[in-house]
Amino acid sequence: MKNTFGNNMTVTIFGESHGPAIGIVLDGLTPGMDIDQEFIAHQLTLRRPAGKISTARKEADPYQILSGAFEGKTTGTSMCIMIPNADTHSSDYSELKSTARPGHADYTADVKYHGFQDYRGGGHFSGRITAALVAAGGVLIPALNKKGIYIGTHIKSCAGVEDRAFSCDGVKGYQGDIDTLKDASFAVLDEEAAKEMLARMEAIAAEGDSVGGVLETVISGVPAGVGEPWFDSVESLLSHGLFSIPAIKGVQFGDAFAMVNGRGSEYNDAFRMDGDRVVTKTNHNGGINGGITNGMPILFSCAVKPTPSIYKQQETVDFKNGVDKDLSIQGRHDPAIIHRARVVVDSVAAIVIYDALVGRFGTDYFA
Amino acid sequence: MKNTFGNNMTVTIFGESHGPAIGIVLDGLTPGMDIDQEFIAHQLTLRRPAGKISTARKEADPYQILSGAFEGKTTGTSMCIMIPNADTHSSDYSELKSTARPGHADYTADVKYHGFQDYRGGGHFSGRITAALVAAGGVLIPALNKKGIYIGTHIKSCAGVEDRAFSCDGVKGYQGDIDTLKDASFAVLDEEAAKEMLARMEAIAAEGDSVGGVLETVISGVPAGVGEPWFDSVESLLSHGLFSIPAIKGVQFGDAFAMVNGRGSEYNDAFRMDGDRVVTKTNHNGGINGGITNGMPILFSCAVKPTPSIYKQQETVDFKNGVDKDLSIQGRHDPAIIHRARVVVDSVAAIVIYDALVGRFGTDYFA
Amino acid sequence: MKNTFGNNMTVTIFGESHGPAIGIVLDGLTPGMDIDQEFIAHQLTLRRPAGKISTARKEADPYQILSGAFEGKTTGTSMCIMIPNADTHSSDYSELKSTARPGHADYTADVKYHGFQDYRGGGHFSGRITAALVAAGGVLIPALNKKGIYIGTHIKSCAGVEDRAFSCDGVKGYQGDIDTLKDASFAVLDEEAAKEMLARMEAIAAEGDSVGGVLETVISGVPAGVGEPWFDSVESLLSHGLFSIPAIKGVQFGDAFAMVNGRGSEYNDAFRMDGDRVVTKTNHNGGINGGITNGMPILFSCAVKPTPSIYKQQETVDFKNGVDKDLSIQGRHDPAIIHRARVVVDSVAAIVIYDALVGRFGTDYFA
Amino acid sequence: MKNTFGNNMTVTIFGESHGPAIGIVLDGLTPGMDIDQEFIAHQLTLRRPAGKISTARKEADPYQILSGAFEGKTTGTSMCIMIPNADTHSSDYSELKSTARPGHADYTADVKYHGFQDYRGGGHFSGRITAALVAAGGVLIPALNKKGIYIGTHIKSCAGVEDRAFSCDGVKGYQGDIDTLKDASFAVLDEEAAKEMLARMEAIAAEGDSVGGVLETVISGVPAGVGEPWFDSVESLLSHGLFSIPAIKGVQFGDAFAMVNGRGSEYNDAFRMDGDRVVTKTNHNGGINGGITNGMPILFSCAVKPTPSIYKQQETVDFKNGVDKDLSIQGRHDPAIIHRARVVVDSVAAIVIYDALVGRFGTDYFA
Repeated sequence: MKNTFGNNMTVTIFGESHGPAIGIVLDGLTPGMDIDQEFIAHQLTLRRPAGKISTARKEADPYQILSGAFEGKTTGTSMCIMIPNADTHSSDYSELKSTARPGHADYTADVKYHGFQDYRGGGHFSGRITAALVAAGGVLIPALNKKGIYIGTHIKSCAGVEDRAFSCDGVKGYQGDIDTLKDASFAVLDEEAAKEMLARMEAIAAEGDSVGGVLETVISGVPAGVGEPWFDSVESLLSHGLFSIPAIKGVQFGDAFAMVNGRGSEYNDAFRMDGDRVVTKTNHNGGINGGITNGMPILFSCAVKPTPSIYKQQETVDFKNGVDKDLSIQGRHDPAIIHRARVVVDSVAAIVIYDALVGRFGTDYFA
Repeated sequence: MKNTFGNNMTVTIFGESHGPAIGIVLDGLTPGMDIDQEFIAHQLTLRRPAGKISTARKEADPYQILSGAFEGKTTGTSMCIMIPNADTHSSDYSELKSTARPGHADYTADVKYHGFQDYRGGGHFSGRITAALVAAGGVLIPALNKKGIYIGTHIKSCAGVEDRAFSCDGVKGYQGDIDTLKDASFAVLDEEAAKEMLARMEAIAAEGDSVGGVLETVISGVPAGVGEPWFDSVESLLSHGLFSIPAIKGVQFGDAFAMVNGRGSEYNDAFRMDGDRVVTKTNHNGGINGGITNGMPILFSCAVKPTPSIYKQQETVDFKNGVDKDLSIQGRHDPAIIHRARVVVDSVAAIVIYDALVGRFGTDYFA
Repeated sequence: MKNTFGNNMTVTIFGESHGPAIGIVLDGLTPGMDIDQEFIAHQLTLRRPAGKISTARKEADPYQILSGAFEGKTTGTSMCIMIPNADTHSSDYSELKSTARPGHADYTADVKYHGFQDYRGGGHFSGRITAALVAAGGVLIPALNKKGIYIGTHIKSCAGVEDRAFSCDGVKGYQGDIDTLKDASFAVLDEEAAKEMLARMEAIAAEGDSVGGVLETVISGVPAGVGEPWFDSVESLLSHGLFSIPAIKGVQFGDAFAMVNGRGSEYNDAFRMDGDRVVTKTNHNGGINGGITNGMPILFSCAVKPTPSIYKQQETVDFKNGVDKDLSIQGRHDPAIIHRARVVVDSVAAIVIYDALVGRFGTDYFA
Repeated sequence: MKNTFGNNMTVTIFGESHGPAIGIVLDGLTPGMDIDQEFIAHQLTLRRPAGKISTARKEADPYQILSGAFEGKTTGTSMCIMIPNADTHSSDYSELKSTARPGHADYTADVKYHGFQDYRGGGHFSGRITAALVAAGGVLIPALNKKGIYIGTHIKSCAGVEDRAFSCDGVKGYQGDIDTLKDASFAVLDEEAAKEMLARMEAIAAEGDSVGGVLETVISGVPAGVGEPWFDSVESLLSHGLFSIPAIKGVQFGDAFAMVNGRGSEYNDAFRMDGDRVVTKTNHNGGINGGITNGMPILFSCAVKPTPSIYKQQETVDFKNGVDKDLSIQGRHDPAIIHRARVVVDSVAAIVIYDALVGRFGTDYFA
């Protein structure tokens, strides 16, 4: 299905970095949902570069809703959101026609598309395309919020600095942190950690190098009983979406990679009644048992690889001519994208959860 | 799509642990592929319990191909493989109707299916259902092999013991290890590590506890140019399938979680020509750039959580009556499933790669 | 998607006429639905040959539910229904390996499957495979009935004889005829027409020739608002399923081919209030406006071509050797299948409507 | 899947008649296909109103390719084609908020979308949305032509006038007629019939009434062996797409509804060798046996109902207030759309055949 994702509420993405526009079509939305244009703009701003650790490109990201909206609400028909491209400098990119930037998709795109791909600025592989996902998230997140579902992502680790853990106290315990992250331009919960992280990131940027990190996400308020045992487990659906985000190379739920040398007696989440509600005393499984939500917050984290665009000279090939060459990437590029990626992760999470809920409860669920 | 997975070659799974049979339907197979019944049986045997770290249940796993085969070859029509259930002791499981085993899906299944699920032995959530995936893999893996594609999985880490890394020397370098793993009943490359691992696993089993671990997989020989930038990245497709396997809670490609505090200059895989072939000097990205294969071996690893079935007493709830209770699980169960899961991982990988190749090159690709 | 059909409740079909078994997997069923085994058997009997206008083959069609059922109810997990093949005479069919029966799929199957298809008895193209659809219908129809949705099909026209029209009096007006058809072995409403039709069919059969006809179907009780304007119109979904039934070559909704030379003023269905319910005074549009149900009965009819198996000598080719030849088909075969096909049409209609309803209202709709 | 259609090459449609724009996303295109902008514009012009039997609205249909194109060729990534709306007079439509035009989707849309639909000009149900399908066809048809596949549709019957049959002489025999139809503004093969048809249509229009008709289509050059026996038969795929076109209520392949009272001996298409090629002497089955192409031209016809918009006073309801009312539709509307629909039928046919071919032969098939 390539550029379409989802079972009941689908998103179809399009666009190249230096083409006329990028965009996304959302299909299967509940009719009558409020469209909060300010929130969509807010989300797009969170994805935009800011400060020394981001590139100079000004992406105002003005967007236009072409369909599926009427009098401020969703109609229930397919909604196309278009974001025109502007401020593109195509001349920067001519070398990419035949030179593979290490860690990038220039070579694999050339093999797949036989040289017909728009290679400028990464084309269809550009991180810019994630703005379309963020716009979609901007439509969906308020609808989820109205159902008591909240999503928050912080930079758990970057440049050797760890953020504090989410502060959790019971089922709703993450709410304070989610609120804090909502408008944060640099999504780190601990202020000291944030400062140290930024300082290290800037130092590494000054060296012409780049960093990655870990993004940790919580989704609270998803009712128990959502997901499937085989193939459409909540983990399957979320990871499917998340691995589409450039630079994400690992996804774990709960304490996955921490559990591997532990024991069942340590990591089984004991069930307990909390009033008439079933809860777990711990949440090592990230709110999911057997692929299905158990009503506890869904917790997952994503490994973001160091941004491949670096200024340091690198070894590579001219794949058109089949010869080795050295490459020094010029032009603007980000020494880190993790602080921008977090709103993309939120948006993908929103897409997946929205889709799962309308599949389970019908197309009017978000009325 | 629930119990169906894949875009062009799909698998549809069915069955409960204690129902009449489990099985799988493969659809979209190339006509004329040899069916190696001995190999299918061999794969099913690799999934079967053996030794002190597995339960006593004898699952002979006799299977029957009900359709899609004629004169020893695939016809190209949908192939149903059925594996009848036998040796089931339903009386063991009556408590599960209302008691949630921690770490298991008893509670989430009850919420999702409103109490109508077959709760015996985990029902549709049982690890037994993975035998159907293994049977499917038994059909697909020989076809992949004929195309020069090989898959191998070893237990990278378990019970605090690490196996040696895959020995890699160039694109084909993994072949020796893959050959070694092909028939291994305990898939650890280093013999000393294997002994130590087994000893620790048995000790933990003797305590009534359980372990997890990390499975590491290589897929060699996949041509460059397979996969999609958005939504159907090779990482997306593989993780979608892998997260269906019970107990897998994390998936990473290449060195994902190891890269998070590193730098671009360390982890960008430099390209180089190897004769007229483009290769990378390192493979931190696991053979995938921008969601698309680059011709290097695909590398991924899966975090397997400790088996939730333990003999130690645990806290839980009676979810029918909404009260806390203590639970001591009786009957047979595995203190570890990682040694059995590895052939399931191989099989899911085979399903995903086969599907991607027929999508890219057409339904006759494996002729 | 080939052998899988549906969006939310899917069916996956498998089997060849002379293989070990045929069957179907239903996925996405509401948990807790009663399984009426007697009704399933009844439906399978309606599809079985009877009398002079059907072949001698005794297909007892014993079926087995392999999964997805527990204590007489659906569990909500995937349900595989298997129907073993028996009474197969493979020796009858050896000529089909290289000889194309006119009107049959022997040649096209050979091109598609490169000669690896199971050619015996039509293989995967055999009308016998429709028994699997009928079994699926046997599970779904009682659930639809509980929601007030009823389906009935009669032979509108065959061998030059016309049945009377459905007697319709308001929204529920078809109920009497639907009840009549429920158990009818020869689904013709007018007794005189039935006699005349049968007599003509037998006469044509005696000549070694065959007939087709028109099947007309009503689905009453589907609520308004189901279906989609683009691509998943109710007409699109129904026709997609119906054109899978062998011999069906035309599908029309309402008075389609009768309207083509009429005028808007004749065929627009005027709306009127019936109490607080919106109805139409006529139903030329077959209960569907803009692809979406309007609450009136859905009406469609299918053109069934004359059964291609005839005893008369025919011109054809030996496609393996590329030479013309004459063919006289031996063995048993039906001079008409229209009286058997009607329960297949009912079943496909049930699959489509069930799927559309769980997509619209969620997976618990049929609880 | 609602607004997305196709298995391997998909189209996703969006837009309302009076919103900012309509459009379509094509995904799964072969990279490197020439984009013939002149041809796309030509096709859009064929869909535009002309003469006395069309409305006055001037739809220049300027379109913009937003993505998936580079240097005049397809890139292989998703291609969004946007057609901005202009010349919209929203004030015409206020009555439709609560009044159901007979034969239209106003009422069903209101039920489905709970009153949130954009009711202006039919909104998402408007025939205008078919311009997006035509634009998609404009991309695909030249690629099919390069493979020797040609599509042509004529008005077989309208207002009681019959066009002559396609002149067929062997496999390629339709080519002359297809060439004739390519640029025809009124797609009738016989000039006298065309004149008579137009005269009658104008007379009926003058009465404030409307007409429908039959469109007959030929697709030549599709290789044998394309399609599936179950669920994705060529008939299933084509009808699924065709029934999305507003006003199409019936689809038949070959001589479907003419065969119903005939005999097998009349309608079985005898096979014969034509050199080393298998052909049929007749083509009553429309080039399809068992759901799979047999290499003969695919033939189908569509019943187009009389356009529901008529000037004559009609009975209907105010569905918001639940009362009967009379309606006289004002404003511009077409007394016939059959002459405009034919290029939509061609486009849908192109979508289906393109999709089936890349599914069968891989994504590079149209290179």
